Amino acid sequence: MAEYMTGLKRTHYCGDLRISDVGKEVTVCGWVQRCRDLGQLIFIDLRDRSGIVQLAFTDKTDREIFAKAFACRGEFVLAAKGTVCERSAKNYDIPTGEIEVTVSDLRVLSKAQTPPFEIVDESETNEELRLRYRYLDLRRRPLLNNLMMRSKISKVARDYFAENGFVEIETPMMIKSTPEGARDYLVPSRIHNGKFYALPQSPQIYKQLLMVSGFDRYIQLARCFRDEDLRADRQPEFTQIDMELSFVDVEDILEINEGFFKRLFKEVLGQELETPFTRMTYADAMENYGSDKPDVRFGMKIQDISDLVKDCGFGVFTGAIENGGSVRAIVAKNAASTYTRKEIDKLTEYVRGIGAKGLAYVRWVDEPNASFKKFMTDDELAAIYDRLGAEKGDVILIVADKNSTVLSTLGALRLKIAKRLDIIPDEFKFVWIVDFPFFEKDEESGEWVAMHHPFTMPKEDCIQYLDTDPSKVIAKAYDLTLNGVELSSGSMRITDPELQQRMFRALKLTDEEIEAKFGFLVEAYKYGAPPHGGMGIGLDRVTMLLCGADSLRDVTAFPKVQNASELMSACPAPVDKESLDVLGIALTD
Amino acid sequence: MAEYMTGLKRTHYCGDLRISDVGKEVTVCGWVQRCRDLGQLIFIDLRDRSGIVQLAFTDKTDREIFAKAFACRGEFVLAAKGTVCERSAKNYDIPTGEIEVTVSDLRVLSKAQTPPFEIVDESETNEELRLRYRYLDLRRRPLLNNLMMRSKISKVARDYFAENGFVEIETPMMIKSTPEGARDYLVPSRIHNGKFYALPQSPQIYKQLLMVSGFDRYIQLARCFRDEDLRADRQPEFTQIDMELSFVDVEDILEINEGFFKRLFKEVLGQELETPFTRMTYADAMENYGSDKPDVRFGMKIQDISDLVKDCGFGVFTGAIENGGSVRAIVAKNAASTYTRKEIDKLTEYVRGIGAKGLAYVRWVDEPNASFKKFMTDDELAAIYDRLGAEKGDVILIVADKNSTVLSTLGALRLKIAKRLDIIPDEFKFVWIVDFPFFEKDEESGEWVAMHHPFTMPKEDCIQYLDTDPSKVIAKAYDLTLNGVELSSGSMRITDPELQQRMFRALKLTDEEIEAKFGFLVEAYKYGAPPHGGMGIGLDRVTMLLCGADSLRDVTAFPKVQNASELMSACPAPVDKESLDVLGIALTD
Repeated sequence: MAEYMTGLKRTHYCGDLRISDVGKEVTVCGWVQRCRDLGQLIFIDLRDRSGIVQLAFTDKTDREIFAKAFACRGEFVLAAKGTVCERSAKNYDIPTGEIEVTVSDLRVLSKAQTPPFEIVDESETNEELRLRYRYLDLRRRPLLNNLMMRSKISKVARDYFAENGFVEIETPMMIKSTPEGARDYLVPSRIHNGKFYALPQSPQIYKQLLMVSGFDRYIQLARCFRDEDLRADRQPEFTQIDMELSFVDVEDILEINEGFFKRLFKEVLGQELETPFTRMTYADAMENYGSDKPDVRFGMKIQDISDLVKDCGFGVFTGAIENGGSVRAIVAKNAASTYTRKEIDKLTEYVRGIGAKGLAYVRWVDEPNASFKKFMTDDELAAIYDRLGAEKGDVILIVADKNSTVLSTLGALRLKIAKRLDIIPDEFKFVWIVDFPFFEKDEESGEWVAMHHPFTMPKEDCIQYLDTDPSKVIAKAYDLTLNGVELSSGSMRITDPELQQRMFRALKLTDEEIEAKFGFLVEAYKYGAPPHGGMGIGLDRVTMLLCGADSLRDVTAFPKVQNASELMSACPAPVDKESLDVLGIALTD
Repeated sequence: MAEYMTGLKRTHYCGDLRISDVGKEVTVCGWVQRCRDLGQLIFIDLRDRSGIVQLAFTDKTDREIFAKAFACRGEFVLAAKGTVCERSAKNYDIPTGEIEVTVSDLRVLSKAQTPPFEIVDESETNEELRLRYRYLDLRRRPLLNNLMMRSKISKVARDYFAENGFVEIETPMMIKSTPEGARDYLVPSRIHNGKFYALPQSPQIYKQLLMVSGFDRYIQLARCFRDEDLRADRQPEFTQIDMELSFVDVEDILEINEGFFKRLFKEVLGQELETPFTRMTYADAMENYGSDKPDVRFGMKIQDISDLVKDCGFGVFTGAIENGGSVRAIVAKNAASTYTRKEIDKLTEYVRGIGAKGLAYVRWVDEPNASFKKFMTDDELAAIYDRLGAEKGDVILIVADKNSTVLSTLGALRLKIAKRLDIIPDEFKFVWIVDFPFFEKDEESGEWVAMHHPFTMPKEDCIQYLDTDPSKVIAKAYDLTLNGVELSSGSMRITDPELQQRMFRALKLTDEEIEAKFGFLVEAYKYGAPPHGGMGIGLDRVTMLLCGADSLRDVTAFPKVQNASELMSACPAPVDKESLDVLGIALTD
């Protein structure tokens, strides 16, 4: 039978005891991390969420207590009362290593079977087994700390935004399904058979309505749901620090969020972040980094050499330019020894896998050795090296294709090479990406489609081009990126019903489509809406970056795996027919 | 076309301006509450979430601005720049009533159609219309304030529990369906056709697992879902301040929550709550108030007169006692003039509606007039009046039946009469109900069934009766009640697998049932669980009581109505067949 804590009350967490506590009578509680039986001496490392403390049982210990300690095994749960004593053999590796608790009362609150894997910081057990026993995996210090840090991040977010006048409002989780965006998770209605709720992909519509209502500044740490096929870094449910502000413009929103991250880094990491963050236009990000979420911790920018090669003898280059494309390059400094001919061949294979036709290169060991040198004069080659600032030891990689392919390919190569060369500093570099184009041309249909949701506000001075030249319309949209990861996305919204109608027309939406997709939201804006905008910050992703974790699963208490199932509870699971009957649904196969 | 805020930036909220701001140049933004056109003078009351300020346009105002002001209508959205001036005619009813803003720049940010109902504090518009235009209804001050207060309550909760070492952990929203308790909302899986997730009725299992993991103190403001037929005071989704603590016992949990409510009342209402709250056993609550959520703001306790009437000549009384029941009474002081014969007849009808066979009474106008006087001697009657402390002017109401009926009937009567007599003081009286019986006898089957979930811990000194006398087993369960409303329910949990098995056997659960209902949770407790317990506080209900709101709908941003639909978005709604096909389900009718 288990023992009870009757008469005992915890006085300290294990990890908090220090040399200054020597002489105190304390009661600590926790799990047995390790037992060492030295005959007349038994040491037990007792673990709780704060850390570990050593319990000591000696020849002076009451024999019954000693016998209990002797019977302890890993993961037993104990309450121990005793006196804090200075250790003779100190362990300066842990914060409590100068002391131990000489135990006078011990209760075995719970015994434990041998766990299916050892509770150690670096587990080599496969993740599937660990996920099945998630409650044991969460005992491991790295996971425990990650989730405690996540809690702290949420708290800082709520404190900061509350101090800045934001009101946290809970929006519904069972909402109307919208045919936009990713796939909704559906919830069949029992009362209204044949009808369904949807789980929200975000509180977008509701937060806009809250601005129409006059709440002025809204925040919510909102659970969001997307029924997508999961990639490594996705979860079917995730959390967003979701906000919306009235009577502001883009710059106000960026500033308030810079303030948040400054506060967050200070409180959670003890780091001073420099603000304002870099603002980079979408066009510049694409031109220089081939990505709308550039990792700017290192250079290796993309450079355009189209003008230098437009008349050269290399058809791959000239052809790309004649077809409206370009020829661009990146220079990997001091990479010639790493990137042998064979390694560059692998890069060529890689770029073919992501849509490019091929890769031209210059490998400069002693002399620059260009893969395309037979098509060029020495002067032409020299002009390229000069433009790119290439030197002995460098590798130049060149892609010639239509612009979108050139940029995305070189952007991907840039990251891949930087990782391989290990030249990315371990620091945090935030960049705001601003001035997104409003429309993009669908490559297949040639139609202009909205890059953002159709309530995104265009810059005031672009509105004139809405009907005449969509390519000139810039959206009041902005993304926050950190080290090449998109943390947040947001925009100002259209609040003028007339402008909204022009936008719908530019997107060729029929009245029926508008009504079906946005009916009550469009109606709401007829009754007086303030200028407003907002954004949503991916809490899971922020936590992952701040914890230095490799996966969202490591910052989520009970994550789902790639096929959206949870291994511990074996969910989803079949339900009985009666449950389906009352919902008016049946399985089709 | 709408105007923009370009060049203007809000400096103050409308409601914050005071006489001390006179002379300042300010910019305020908001909605037009009211326009008054006095010819050469125009006054506009501008409203934002903080309050209202008067804008003034005079004969010195630029004519273009004056014309814009003239064209303003209710609910237009404005930004106004101007100078704070002292009013000649002051209005001391509102905080800004001593000043006005003499406007020098005005922008009409958004025009507004005439709303379907007026935006005033006390709306007489029917709720259905208001719910359809919820975003307009939320502009009304009482609702706006309720939701701002809800936000504050959440913030205080998070602050308090964080300061006390609680970690907020987000548990999953898509979990395994359990056949226990209320009906789950189900979510069909697209990847695993034929399988379903369920929306959580509470994070119960997950929070217990977090204790097994060693998080020690968990808090979450958790959204919970129950697919029940809605009563007036229910919502299909609601929020719980959910917590669980390790290495504690009942009293620790009660104390920490008393601290929370003390803090909450201080910060939100500016009121000092007295702690500790009254602790009342379930048995006492039932005996004295006929309810496990007694409203103790007034007396009128139930009194047992069985011993006085057990040998009297009134068969209704003696019969009830002979059948193991009792005869009990309440005294409504000074109620004789309110409760005429006719009114008492209505009470009799009422008690019959809730399961009693009838109602005996004494109406004491000049002389005590007992409905059963012909069956009793004067001495017997006098003994009753004496025992009950009844006097001239009082009404005594007596029920004779089996105990459960007597108590529930008198409990209900007590509340009904107190409301009618308007004797309930406007104050907050918290009571902890403790020492719940572990089992109750199912009246139909005669079997012992658990009153709480089967993981509830019995009091240690009752464990011995588990197999022999279930009636003697008291649960470590506790409810927090406020003014007759249950705010919270909680318990200590069983952490000893052996005791858990005995409990399952006492409840006659088979191994298959245990595995199906609690499989992985039972498994988890084999690996070392700390003593732990917790509770969940109904945030919606707490907010309602603190706001003095009549309905959960008045403290929920976007509530659903009785049939679980949301009128604004018309949800739930049909979805297309393709969406169902990918889920492997079809409608059955």
